[in-house]
Amino acid sequence: MDHVKQITIVGTGLLGASCGLGLRAAGFAGLIVGVGRRIETPKRARRLGAVDTATTDLGPAVRNSQLVILATPLSSFAPLLEQLAKHLHEGLVITDVGSTKQQVCADARRLLPTPSHFVGSHPMAGSEQHGPDAARADLFHNKPCIITPEADTLSATQQTVEALWTMLKMRVLKMSPAQHDHQTARISHLPHALSVLLVELAAKHDALDLASTGFRDTTRLASGDPKVWLDIFATNHHAIAQAIDEFTQRLTQFRNHLTQGDQEAILQLLQQNKQTRDAWVKSFESTKNV
Amino acid sequence: MDHVKQITIVGTGLLGASCGLGLRAAGFAGLIVGVGRRIETPKRARRLGAVDTATTDLGPAVRNSQLVILATPLSSFAPLLEQLAKHLHEGLVITDVGSTKQQVCADARRLLPTPSHFVGSHPMAGSEQHGPDAARADLFHNKPCIITPEADTLSATQQTVEALWTMLKMRVLKMSPAQHDHQTARISHLPHALSVLLVELAAKHDALDLASTGFRDTTRLASGDPKVWLDIFATNHHAIAQAIDEFTQRLTQFRNHLTQGDQEAILQLLQQNKQTRDAWVKSFESTKNV
Repeated sequence: MDHVKQITIVGTGLLGASCGLGLRAAGFAGLIVGVGRRIETPKRARRLGAVDTATTDLGPAVRNSQLVILATPLSSFAPLLEQLAKHLHEGLVITDVGSTKQQVCADARRLLPTPSHFVGSHPMAGSEQHGPDAARADLFHNKPCIITPEADTLSATQQTVEALWTMLKMRVLKMSPAQHDHQTARISHLPHALSVLLVELAAKHDALDLASTGFRDTTRLASGDPKVWLDIFATNHHAIAQAIDEFTQRLTQFRNHLTQGDQEAILQLLQQNKQTRDAWVKSFESTKNV
Repeated sequence: MDHVKQITIVGTGLLGASCGLGLRAAGFAGLIVGVGRRIETPKRARRLGAVDTATTDLGPAVRNSQLVILATPLSSFAPLLEQLAKHLHEGLVITDVGSTKQQVCADARRLLPTPSHFVGSHPMAGSEQHGPDAARADLFHNKPCIITPEADTLSATQQTVEALWTMLKMRVLKMSPAQHDHQTARISHLPHALSVLLVELAAKHDALDLASTGFRDTTRLASGDPKVWLDIFATNHHAIAQAIDEFTQRLTQFRNHLTQGDQEAILQLLQQNKQTRDAWVKSFESTKNV
């Protein structure tokens, strides 16, 4: 990241402002420019120390930057890439923090004159809160970040984006946009849908009075920002529908084990997945101490 | 609880030992007797200050007690009630902490000479940990506890059990065993099954490397004790199968909204349930400060 003297963060909500705070905490000495559709948000991020300057004007904001991070809702990526196409200059690397990758990568290829300067990113960090006030310098620490370089991505582009997330102390994984969307449909988007439907079911049966910490944790995702999730579902509906089919099939099998009293199958399912999860949690939590 | 001078806790794991610690912290001045199948567990609970005496012998342990709390796995309730039937004396109230209620209430009716001395309880508190070392005096604080008195339950019996949970700072709700099992199938048992199957799905697709805090929280229940959950599924399979059918139907509807691109239906679902959950969490968390 030595050649990066200025970074532009477009969208200074939870993720954008956390990038700014994290870069500063990690010792990034260059200028951080915050861009918002309304000036209030980057101004607030500036007051919080997440960016150095606040603007609504994309062109001047990227003129002297070597890196742009798109941290706005998924549905704004296409219009933003269209605008950025007009202001591209050699040595400007673009990435995003969107939760789905096929759509934005296809848009970048379609809209940018030099798509080799774009790499998609998905830092797997978040919160059910949003806005710059929820931002934290350590939001990304020790969490996975998927980047989706393609065959014609310049290696310098990939290196810059990888260096960004490494600086924010993330574990960087590389895969294709399609594989990303397939995996996150299962690890993130389906769990989100299940959380939402569990809240609905509990409310329908007036069972919330009985709910306790287990229900609270299982449904935490359901408190996420509806508009953010509407975009995620829209841009990954194919993989999510597949994941739902696969999950429903297993749930039906489990139902059959229940009604047939197949204790052995149920015990094995419970034991195997407790073991899997305990091992994963141990490794996930242990990286916090590295 | 003034007439209660001695309480017997059968099973001094997480829940039993937390009852003991909580009673002591709440100022219960009588004797607390801990009973275990193997002497090591109540002895450990005694060292932790959760019980005063440790034994494996049920008869003597209840002779001078006014209240027995069964805090062993669900599958041990029937044999324990059979044994207790031999040692019943006037003024002995029996309750349990099991996660399903129809089975244990039917067993009490079948096995006890005076079922009017039994009331089922389900304190909605727990952890994915177990054993006396995981016990906490405040485990039950401000969480719901369902008790399931029936038409012939003595009011003194009900009052004693209600006083127990109130002393442990729980919010007591009353309902029939059938209603309890219907509601908890939706608020607790189905969420548990979904958590387990989500872990399985993620592992099958090698997607655990991408998992982060959202997945961790959504699947916390999957780390629960397999044997405890095997019993819960076995004793409530009918209501859980119903809940699965209902849930699968809604999940399929959601899938159709996705593939048909019905943005409006999805946004409404997300907004409605975020609102529901946010309101519930606010009220659930606020009781902590009462």
